[in-house]
Amino acid sequence: MTYKDQQLSEEKVFKDPVHRYIHVKDQVIWDLIGTPEFQRLRRIKQLGTSYVTFHGAEHSRFNHSLGVYEIVRRILSNFEGKPFWNQEERLLCLCAALLHDLGHGPFSHSFEKVFKLDHEAFTRAIILGNTHVHHILQRVEQNFPQKVADVINKTYEDKLVISLISSQIDADRMDYLQRDAYYTGVSYGHFDMERILRVMRPTEDQLVIKDTGMHAVEDYIMSRYQMYWQVYFHPVTRSAEVILSKILHRSKYLFENNYTFKLNPIHFLSFFTEQVQLEEYLNLDESVVLYYFQMWKEEEDPILSDLCNRFINRQLFKYIEFNPNQQMVAWQELYSLFQEVGIDPSYYLVVDSSSDLPYDFYRPGEEEERLPIHLLTKKNELRELSRLSDIVESISGKKRTDNKLYFPLDFLEALPSGSKAKKRIFEILR
Amino acid sequence: MTYKDQQLSEEKVFKDPVHRYIHVKDQVIWDLIGTPEFQRLRRIKQLGTSYVTFHGAEHSRFNHSLGVYEIVRRILSNFEGKPFWNQEERLLCLCAALLHDLGHGPFSHSFEKVFKLDHEAFTRAIILGNTHVHHILQRVEQNFPQKVADVINKTYEDKLVISLISSQIDADRMDYLQRDAYYTGVSYGHFDMERILRVMRPTEDQLVIKDTGMHAVEDYIMSRYQMYWQVYFHPVTRSAEVILSKILHRSKYLFENNYTFKLNPIHFLSFFTEQVQLEEYLNLDESVVLYYFQMWKEEEDPILSDLCNRFINRQLFKYIEFNPNQQMVAWQELYSLFQEVGIDPSYYLVVDSSSDLPYDFYRPGEEEERLPIHLLTKKNELRELSRLSDIVESISGKKRTDNKLYFPLDFLEALPSGSKAKKRIFEILR
Amino acid sequence: MTYKDQQLSEEKVFKDPVHRYIHVKDQVIWDLIGTPEFQRLRRIKQLGTSYVTFHGAEHSRFNHSLGVYEIVRRILSNFEGKPFWNQEERLLCLCAALLHDLGHGPFSHSFEKVFKLDHEAFTRAIILGNTHVHHILQRVEQNFPQKVADVINKTYEDKLVISLISSQIDADRMDYLQRDAYYTGVSYGHFDMERILRVMRPTEDQLVIKDTGMHAVEDYIMSRYQMYWQVYFHPVTRSAEVILSKILHRSKYLFENNYTFKLNPIHFLSFFTEQVQLEEYLNLDESVVLYYFQMWKEEEDPILSDLCNRFINRQLFKYIEFNPNQQMVAWQELYSLFQEVGIDPSYYLVVDSSSDLPYDFYRPGEEEERLPIHLLTKKNELRELSRLSDIVESISGKKRTDNKLYFPLDFLEALPSGSKAKKRIFEILR
Amino acid sequence: MTYKDQQLSEEKVFKDPVHRYIHVKDQVIWDLIGTPEFQRLRRIKQLGTSYVTFHGAEHSRFNHSLGVYEIVRRILSNFEGKPFWNQEERLLCLCAALLHDLGHGPFSHSFEKVFKLDHEAFTRAIILGNTHVHHILQRVEQNFPQKVADVINKTYEDKLVISLISSQIDADRMDYLQRDAYYTGVSYGHFDMERILRVMRPTEDQLVIKDTGMHAVEDYIMSRYQMYWQVYFHPVTRSAEVILSKILHRSKYLFENNYTFKLNPIHFLSFFTEQVQLEEYLNLDESVVLYYFQMWKEEEDPILSDLCNRFINRQLFKYIEFNPNQQMVAWQELYSLFQEVGIDPSYYLVVDSSSDLPYDFYRPGEEEERLPIHLLTKKNELRELSRLSDIVESISGKKRTDNKLYFPLDFLEALPSGSKAKKRIFEILR
Repeated sequence: MTYKDQQLSEEKVFKDPVHRYIHVKDQVIWDLIGTPEFQRLRRIKQLGTSYVTFHGAEHSRFNHSLGVYEIVRRILSNFEGKPFWNQEERLLCLCAALLHDLGHGPFSHSFEKVFKLDHEAFTRAIILGNTHVHHILQRVEQNFPQKVADVINKTYEDKLVISLISSQIDADRMDYLQRDAYYTGVSYGHFDMERILRVMRPTEDQLVIKDTGMHAVEDYIMSRYQMYWQVYFHPVTRSAEVILSKILHRSKYLFENNYTFKLNPIHFLSFFTEQVQLEEYLNLDESVVLYYFQMWKEEEDPILSDLCNRFINRQLFKYIEFNPNQQMVAWQELYSLFQEVGIDPSYYLVVDSSSDLPYDFYRPGEEEERLPIHLLTKKNELRELSRLSDIVESISGKKRTDNKLYFPLDFLEALPSGSKAKKRIFEILR
Repeated sequence: MTYKDQQLSEEKVFKDPVHRYIHVKDQVIWDLIGTPEFQRLRRIKQLGTSYVTFHGAEHSRFNHSLGVYEIVRRILSNFEGKPFWNQEERLLCLCAALLHDLGHGPFSHSFEKVFKLDHEAFTRAIILGNTHVHHILQRVEQNFPQKVADVINKTYEDKLVISLISSQIDADRMDYLQRDAYYTGVSYGHFDMERILRVMRPTEDQLVIKDTGMHAVEDYIMSRYQMYWQVYFHPVTRSAEVILSKILHRSKYLFENNYTFKLNPIHFLSFFTEQVQLEEYLNLDESVVLYYFQMWKEEEDPILSDLCNRFINRQLFKYIEFNPNQQMVAWQELYSLFQEVGIDPSYYLVVDSSSDLPYDFYRPGEEEERLPIHLLTKKNELRELSRLSDIVESISGKKRTDNKLYFPLDFLEALPSGSKAKKRIFEILR
Repeated sequence: MTYKDQQLSEEKVFKDPVHRYIHVKDQVIWDLIGTPEFQRLRRIKQLGTSYVTFHGAEHSRFNHSLGVYEIVRRILSNFEGKPFWNQEERLLCLCAALLHDLGHGPFSHSFEKVFKLDHEAFTRAIILGNTHVHHILQRVEQNFPQKVADVINKTYEDKLVISLISSQIDADRMDYLQRDAYYTGVSYGHFDMERILRVMRPTEDQLVIKDTGMHAVEDYIMSRYQMYWQVYFHPVTRSAEVILSKILHRSKYLFENNYTFKLNPIHFLSFFTEQVQLEEYLNLDESVVLYYFQMWKEEEDPILSDLCNRFINRQLFKYIEFNPNQQMVAWQELYSLFQEVGIDPSYYLVVDSSSDLPYDFYRPGEEEERLPIHLLTKKNELRELSRLSDIVESISGKKRTDNKLYFPLDFLEALPSGSKAKKRIFEILR
Repeated sequence: MTYKDQQLSEEKVFKDPVHRYIHVKDQVIWDLIGTPEFQRLRRIKQLGTSYVTFHGAEHSRFNHSLGVYEIVRRILSNFEGKPFWNQEERLLCLCAALLHDLGHGPFSHSFEKVFKLDHEAFTRAIILGNTHVHHILQRVEQNFPQKVADVINKTYEDKLVISLISSQIDADRMDYLQRDAYYTGVSYGHFDMERILRVMRPTEDQLVIKDTGMHAVEDYIMSRYQMYWQVYFHPVTRSAEVILSKILHRSKYLFENNYTFKLNPIHFLSFFTEQVQLEEYLNLDESVVLYYFQMWKEEEDPILSDLCNRFINRQLFKYIEFNPNQQMVAWQELYSLFQEVGIDPSYYLVVDSSSDLPYDFYRPGEEEERLPIHLLTKKNELRELSRLSDIVESISGKKRTDNKLYFPLDFLEALPSGSKAKKRIFEILR
């Protein structure tokens, strides 16, 4: 029996709070889970800084990756023998599902923005580079690593396979909505996945859903909407994220200006110079980042030290609603006032915006294009979801944006009580 | 209004997956939660290495500490106006509940054993030392820190207060059983806490339970039994724990033998010399430990390097049932054979034992004494639980021990295939 | 102590799957629950015929009535001491909550339509008539029964009290959505009631909700929408309802045409003549109705016998989408064809329509007016929900109607295979 | 394709709160569910009178029968291709599972005792008699009805098949524990059925369980123990059961003594004379019984009228702990005192006993013998559960009995206050 078809002598199960059990029968999957690159995902939180708001949100990307694998496994076991489904693609789908987030680093969002990284590029690099994961995939077939990378990259020729991993209703989203709801404890994020899986059907170029399952899909769309606004874009989480970004900016700035760190930031050097190699990237997990932040609390630079202290000890910035485009004058005045009282506004006065489209149509050519959801009617026709669902139609394409201004209230309160600038700042912030 | 009685202008709530919401109304509690010493508990996993077996078990002691606080808060809100209950003790109970695990360090179990530490002593040290926590408690009342320490230390004069925090059915146990069940996803660990809280009654020197709630208590005892054997003593978790201990032993040994570390282990020095000061202790959280383990993977000492690699990348030891007391000859032979093939048995051949008493009677004079559970009958008499419950009677005092022998199967398999020693080792281990 | 203030020596609890426990402390409430009129609700299913579709939906109105009481109890325990809240209204609210559905009879929907009854009128009649419930309420205060009736009737002077029992987000709706979801087992119907209760505030003339709870309210609105379309308007349930109505029509018709029943329908006589007295109404519970239906299976009238057999043994009508307004010609042709083949279309060809408004504005003067939901902003202003919520705005006022045509497929299939009429009927129904 | 192998064109699903979905693919199963004999189970409550204690316990035997079918279906889908498993027995197992409770009547427990009936005999009679169920089974194979009856009767030759339906851990018990827990809302009754199903293995003559699943089985045993004492033997439920039995006794007594009923009890006549025919049995469902009880409230016989009023309006007997064997003198005195004050003790002074064995060994020759649970060790040996499980060993074979004395407290309180007999009665009952 080839490695590709090799089965474990006994099925392995992982106890999972969300899917109850995760089942592994393929030797290849078992081997991939055991690699250092995959085990590393245990040291990266799924929701980054959300734990500052929802203390339960301490689960890792390892958790989520297994979950996505399990959902795809269940979908495919329903697909067996169905038209359009090529059983030969099974292992490819499972590997892509398991590995789709492999390139995520610690606190990806801020790291990517500040250091101009792309976790998807690193996912590909791990799969195609000289790694344990690569060698396992290559044992399956010479160009198997490339195929897995193509699926994750959405360039694989079989679009049905891609739609399992990334579309408006893919295994990735179905897992994270439920998982993040479970660990945060919020009451949103629940929908009837078992029903959705039962009504999924393969077609030539995408996964579709029988129209009898439309209400379950509506529920999924609404869950997504609620999770975005209640959890993912929570303003307190964004406060931690703002501070984190500023730490990275400050450390890079100090490095570029030849500041002498007490602890030489060897793990960060290639990030500062934007020349990160794969091995360096893999070495930087969350414990390493937190180690540095703890050391940097003791640095002499007051801004780096203060920001790290805030992050580690959860002394966050406060916020108000603020739209700089509409409040340009206030914004400029605040900026000057901060400078006047000696609080550097480039680190301590931060506007942050979040936005979400609850459900997008397919809009060719756009960057973040996602396949829309198609329903399969009794007459075997495909209809785009929002054509059949009033509720989805009424929310589709409605972009909502939330702008907030973040600042260190404690610093402002500590200003001398007679200060005119202080008084004016509080007038504007009120 | 004094600081002691100060209430937040608006009640704060934490979303909690186990208790749904955690409610904070007291300014003192709110301030304690904000201290660096308490926030540090976010960086220490509640279940140490259990995540290697149950991937969901990534929750922190911060989580659990809030949970214990909430349970005590609910108990006390039922106690208001009841005989024997002194409302003056309320804040003391809440503080002791919140802070009872404050002295836990990363991977406490192994650290305490190897470096001869005692987390309870550190809890006291934090409460009584020059810390943020201490200063807040002192604002309540000059000797309030001492009182809190006494409650946690079980030396406080009011035994009723102590029994809330530590007895056979205290808030600590009720929280961790449910919480650990939730995060691991196992189906054990559930019992009707709401019912138990409703039938709890204060008496002069302990918390008791109305006998109408006996079945809920039985269920709690059984949950505890199942959680011990299914989760806490899981042999795979113990394998990670064994490796962790050996890392600590090896690093200490190397230090004592003047080994030159590539990275000077400054955070560990006082641990190696067993002269840990409070500040050093507080600096050592899980991210710091993991940072060192990652660095030590690259050390030249092959044992330290190998063990750290095993821990970080989850290359665990395998195990068999093995009772060295009954298998002394086999044990000695294995020990010699390991030496013969060049695998140091003091690091790579490890016996580990676990044991639990599902429900203990009160046995005065024993070290780990816990107050037994007393039921209050309709005739207002107190009866020890096992007198009334057949099921508890039948399991009480039954100590069960589980002995396992851990070893690196991969090393053994890599021995030359012709080797007699190898053959013999496998004969014994089979 | 007056009867009004009398408390039970020990709080009574009911184990409830939805709210976990239902707590009763007031003697008045306890006494009301024990009355024959309230116990009678155990013999009336909450969801009428829904059990033919969702076999779990066998719960009674007794269940739901306790649930509504419990929700109001929890709301009021949060209201204590809040502005605008008059603690004197507490018992009135609890009684109105408990008794609001007291006048429901078996399969209310069909009975009310066919026999021109009004369950709300019977609720008032029970509360004001010579009943156990009335005598208990009168012990509280001479005009207390009238007050309770006024609250349920929405004519009570204190509008805040009314809004607890009937508005767009009242205790009634919050209970039935969750309860019906629980018993049917569907995954809709969940929302964070605990959160909603926490953010409810009394105002001068209505219950309002702090805007921080807006997302929980959105979730509630969506739950309601899904429950209507997935459960309450399910076409299979409506099929049973159609048959039930036709049974009632037929029995009345037979009575009016001097048909001699094998079993004299003494329980139905006053219904047939539309002169139902209170005592007769109370005697007619679901077991009595089902007893008659079982007896009527054996009647000689073939239509009554057939319809009862269909209802008892779940031999339901099939259905197709059909809008008679748009398909008038087809409708008339079908009607004639049914007559031609000897299947009486007035019993066997039935159009049924359902419709729902997911969220209504307040529209004064309309019959079914419900108070809209108002949010209380941080600036203490009231805003109608759809002004603040995109999601509610997009669905509010959108009425959706679902038309179906029901017919006995088995009868049609049993027509002689050569029949032209049969062929034509199937062409139209296809 | 033969009827036996005929599959529905599309799988049918029932939404089930306990197992989420119940899947039906076989035409035979679908047809059986549609029979009047099976639909009749909707009109018989699973837990008889338990709803008087747990208001949620209103679910029917229809519910449970589908659940047992579904569990067996899941077990068998795991068995496919396993040694010892004969796929030819599949449909037989499914039918036996679905139909195992078909002979239950309303409030079986009391009816069987009073009228000397045996629901298992009626199950056989329905399967083998001239019924819709019989004709469907016969279409499968001439002697298929007999086979199904044999499995339910535990006389079928293949003991493995029997053990699926009736043993210490069969599908019947696994369903009812979970289902009754769900509907009552109690927190007992939960165990990891998914795990148990995964580790079940067929052997030559019984279903066994891999020893890795031992803890899940322990949990199941404990659930059973708790459900018995918390739900099934609840003293309030037994009070309703006592009254019910006495109603049946009284009506039979009146019939035998030529009492003239206002309503001729035609449905009961054959029960009174103990000559019940199948058709009469099937006609007597719960609505019919409740109809009679309501009518009998108005009978002139004061005992029948009073007891029916108590049952319908939940005016139950109170109870005390009482063991007549140990309290013979008190018992005799009470009996005389009741006679003296004119309360007939044969209806109003009732001792009721409940007992349970939490886990029985196999004891050949005993009537209620149930196959014990065998675990399959890694070495492929079978070990009886209590040999391996400390917890089961400690409770196995321990019979617990609970004796209570029931009486109408309201009658006793209404006795003249000066009465010596009254005073004495209360002294004894205290």
